[in-house]
Amino acid sequence: MKGTKISIYDTTMRDGAQGEGVNFTVKDKILYLQMMYNSGIDYIEAGWPGSNPKDDELFRMIAAKEIALPAKDKAKRSARIAAFGSTCKVNESPEKSEILSKLIAAGTDTVTIVGKAWKLHVTEVLRASLEENLRIIRDSVNFLVQAGKEVIFDAEHFFDGWLEDPDYAMRCVEAAMLGGAKGITLCDTNGGTYSRDISRGVEAVKKTFDPQILGIHAHNDGGLAVANSLAAVEAGANQIQGCLNGMGERCGNANLSTLIPWLQLKLGYEVMEPEALRNLTRFSRYVAELVNYPFDSKQPFVGRSAFAHKAGMHVDAVLKDKRTFEHIDPSLVGNERRILVSDQSGKANICERLRRFQPDLEKDDPLVEEAMRRIKEEENQGYQFETAEGSLDLLCLEILGKFDPPFELLDCHVWSDPLRGELDSVAVIKVKVKDQCVHVAAEGDGPVNALDKALRNTLSAFFPVIEKSQLVDYKVRVLDGSQGTDAVVRVVVETRHGLDSWGTIGISSNILRASSKALLDALYVVILKDQGVIPKSVVNHN
Amino acid sequence: MKGTKISIYDTTMRDGAQGEGVNFTVKDKILYLQMMYNSGIDYIEAGWPGSNPKDDELFRMIAAKEIALPAKDKAKRSARIAAFGSTCKVNESPEKSEILSKLIAAGTDTVTIVGKAWKLHVTEVLRASLEENLRIIRDSVNFLVQAGKEVIFDAEHFFDGWLEDPDYAMRCVEAAMLGGAKGITLCDTNGGTYSRDISRGVEAVKKTFDPQILGIHAHNDGGLAVANSLAAVEAGANQIQGCLNGMGERCGNANLSTLIPWLQLKLGYEVMEPEALRNLTRFSRYVAELVNYPFDSKQPFVGRSAFAHKAGMHVDAVLKDKRTFEHIDPSLVGNERRILVSDQSGKANICERLRRFQPDLEKDDPLVEEAMRRIKEEENQGYQFETAEGSLDLLCLEILGKFDPPFELLDCHVWSDPLRGELDSVAVIKVKVKDQCVHVAAEGDGPVNALDKALRNTLSAFFPVIEKSQLVDYKVRVLDGSQGTDAVVRVVVETRHGLDSWGTIGISSNILRASSKALLDALYVVILKDQGVIPKSVVNHN
Repeated sequence: MKGTKISIYDTTMRDGAQGEGVNFTVKDKILYLQMMYNSGIDYIEAGWPGSNPKDDELFRMIAAKEIALPAKDKAKRSARIAAFGSTCKVNESPEKSEILSKLIAAGTDTVTIVGKAWKLHVTEVLRASLEENLRIIRDSVNFLVQAGKEVIFDAEHFFDGWLEDPDYAMRCVEAAMLGGAKGITLCDTNGGTYSRDISRGVEAVKKTFDPQILGIHAHNDGGLAVANSLAAVEAGANQIQGCLNGMGERCGNANLSTLIPWLQLKLGYEVMEPEALRNLTRFSRYVAELVNYPFDSKQPFVGRSAFAHKAGMHVDAVLKDKRTFEHIDPSLVGNERRILVSDQSGKANICERLRRFQPDLEKDDPLVEEAMRRIKEEENQGYQFETAEGSLDLLCLEILGKFDPPFELLDCHVWSDPLRGELDSVAVIKVKVKDQCVHVAAEGDGPVNALDKALRNTLSAFFPVIEKSQLVDYKVRVLDGSQGTDAVVRVVVETRHGLDSWGTIGISSNILRASSKALLDALYVVILKDQGVIPKSVVNHN
Repeated sequence: MKGTKISIYDTTMRDGAQGEGVNFTVKDKILYLQMMYNSGIDYIEAGWPGSNPKDDELFRMIAAKEIALPAKDKAKRSARIAAFGSTCKVNESPEKSEILSKLIAAGTDTVTIVGKAWKLHVTEVLRASLEENLRIIRDSVNFLVQAGKEVIFDAEHFFDGWLEDPDYAMRCVEAAMLGGAKGITLCDTNGGTYSRDISRGVEAVKKTFDPQILGIHAHNDGGLAVANSLAAVEAGANQIQGCLNGMGERCGNANLSTLIPWLQLKLGYEVMEPEALRNLTRFSRYVAELVNYPFDSKQPFVGRSAFAHKAGMHVDAVLKDKRTFEHIDPSLVGNERRILVSDQSGKANICERLRRFQPDLEKDDPLVEEAMRRIKEEENQGYQFETAEGSLDLLCLEILGKFDPPFELLDCHVWSDPLRGELDSVAVIKVKVKDQCVHVAAEGDGPVNALDKALRNTLSAFFPVIEKSQLVDYKVRVLDGSQGTDAVVRVVVETRHGLDSWGTIGISSNILRASSKALLDALYVVILKDQGVIPKSVVNHN
């Protein structure tokens, strides 16, 4: 129902961390907690105490109040931190359970425990009797409740279990209710359930038990985790478990970065303050950066491509009326519209881009035509300006006759001895700044680093802003998969200066030449943004 | 209804090509057509004749029958090729329309044209009267029908239009029906419509017009493209438009790689032969490779992670009964189960991996413990074996005392002059094979290539299999985003030999050292697979 409060339970640091390629260090988890504490999220599941040394250390710090959390903010509603674990073991009393004692020691008010709700798992995996499974659910929940915890019970494989044997699945939920659980979360653990069955299962539990918190935990193995979570809410669930960016095991968990705007902006539920929602893009990208997780640029709402327009017709239309090709206003989630320039771009896109440097440029100016020709030519060679807006800005300046290179690289030699150890490479460069020629050598860790150091050492004396900028990513991709190490490679360097960041690009069959082109472009952009020649980007600003 | 035939209309080469970073060359399109022709897909939209020179050339070749397509295969049902375009322009007669004449010349039996179905677009973008829009729809469809084409009408923004003004949206569909369209495809062009509204819109058109083909074209801006396509089918649509891997503008089009198995395996519709479905994983990965599109490893059904198990508990369970954590049998779509090894892995995962080389290894053998320790230690340094199964195999062999390096790199020096041009780098290496020491120099395009060439030149004399293997990708990632070019980098090299492929990895703050480690591992694996020491992987085999 419109206006109903739906609470968000973020399991990015626990179930999200099960994703292939995802690893949180203790420091990463602390940073994430600090960022999300006042983000408008209701619950943050921090990990599983006892499952690995990193989580042990984290919960020790939480219990000892060693983590500096931001002050509780009434307007923003601070999150509750939850510890995750499982029921006690088969034939074990809760008092003797190491799992449960670690949960009690974890120092969180909320504890979530998972238990089996599918007969197959009880008989084949636990290898216990059906009654014993009900006992460990009830006793474990009750033991934690007696210890003063708010307990949420995750009914694992609820939907698979309910479809196979509705009665037994319901008895598992009942056991948790009898134990005193405040919340029941119905899990589609294998992620293959159809939305219609999700609705039916949620309705059944709502009708029979009506728990205070009724949550849904959906996986994306069928590509329906978002749809299934929405179906659950429409059927009566009032809490959503999921992960930012849909991180998680196999195909991932329900994507909170998609679900939060759906519920709040499109279906009219109350999730968080509109101001808090504007951080969604920034937070989603930050956590990907934090754990070095490939951020899906096509991701709904928060992706870099989510409001990117490429087809000329679309660009034309969106400039006339944004509703024509945008389903929401991107600023509501802190994202922004992008007009892409590529060899398929129409004049409207390219003209829009050139106007950054010459606002009065007419669409029929011959320079627009010239820019189209140059961009198509360079993209044919393998350039991809969509991911290298810094290099694109430089090309635009050049075409408009406004590019005055702040320096020039005249000469460059590199030696390397990669088996030797540290600082095994030396670069010697000759750089011209204004009318001055400087000859510099620098030692580095590898040839690209030696070259980068030589450039930065020389240039920061002339342009102090260079020291404030950082290279934050360096990507290399072979363009033609069939030629091995002499194939043409595309190097993209991502540079950050404060909150601004941009990509620059180099193409060559020589990785070092491609890298030096991308590095030079990166430094040009740093200097020209500092001089106000290139406007600073507003992406990711808060 | 179970058993109903749902036809698949693949727009990967047309709407998919609108995705950011997607570019098909003419050669790519020909390869794609040849691959998909007998794939079980019903329609393949090849492009838009007249929109760019690449598509002009492609349709010229199609019309002239210059493209060698596989023989029509009755069992496999060959695809129909469709050309895409739009209605004629406002105030233009179809006879004078350049767009329509190019569609007729395109040499395909099927033509799909898009027209406006949302009043906002008619008045704000076309700037035409509502009646004139109906005229151009009806006249354009009719003109193509008269020319002998099977015509499908794509009702652009149908759902946005229908929700705002149901009467006018329906009149647009009616105009196409009056013109003689065989098919009507309802488009959620902005991708923000809720599944419930998709169902209602489809039902309305089905009830009023019941066209022979009733298609759905969903975009993923709300993360619901798959759910919305399924909702449309359940409401009466019998054709799905979409793209492999969900490629496409902004957040992409409906993902055929997800929808086909959903419809066929989980909802019981008839889509294609079970044998054809087994190619889905291979085709999905191939098209990503073809256009150099990042393949989402978390993708449902066909992703590398879709059936990858990391948590120890899950691995234990899935080895007992695969239904416990797999919603379908991965082989039905040509995918496979993977047991991941990482610093969070339990003994079950690592033991499974070691058993590749020692099948009788017991789970409590001290070597399993030792392997866990080594893997955790190396992952702490930045290794990520999930993406480098070749290097993981070498580590397993080493732990089991079964690694006998086929050669050793004793010395290595590289010189580079990246501003010079081609073959600007020289590598001098000293390699020991058996008891023989070889000293070799090789010139290359960049330092990595020079080193790779020196190694391959030397070694292929001893191990001829090396010449048959190819390096197919070379990726570099900065591990700590804050340290610039002297940060630790992870180099992953992907090597292919026939249908087998694997990753190897090197970590260092020196990109050249990391690269040489990954290259050496790659060559070790080529040789050891050839010698039968490492089993060949079956991924991607057909």
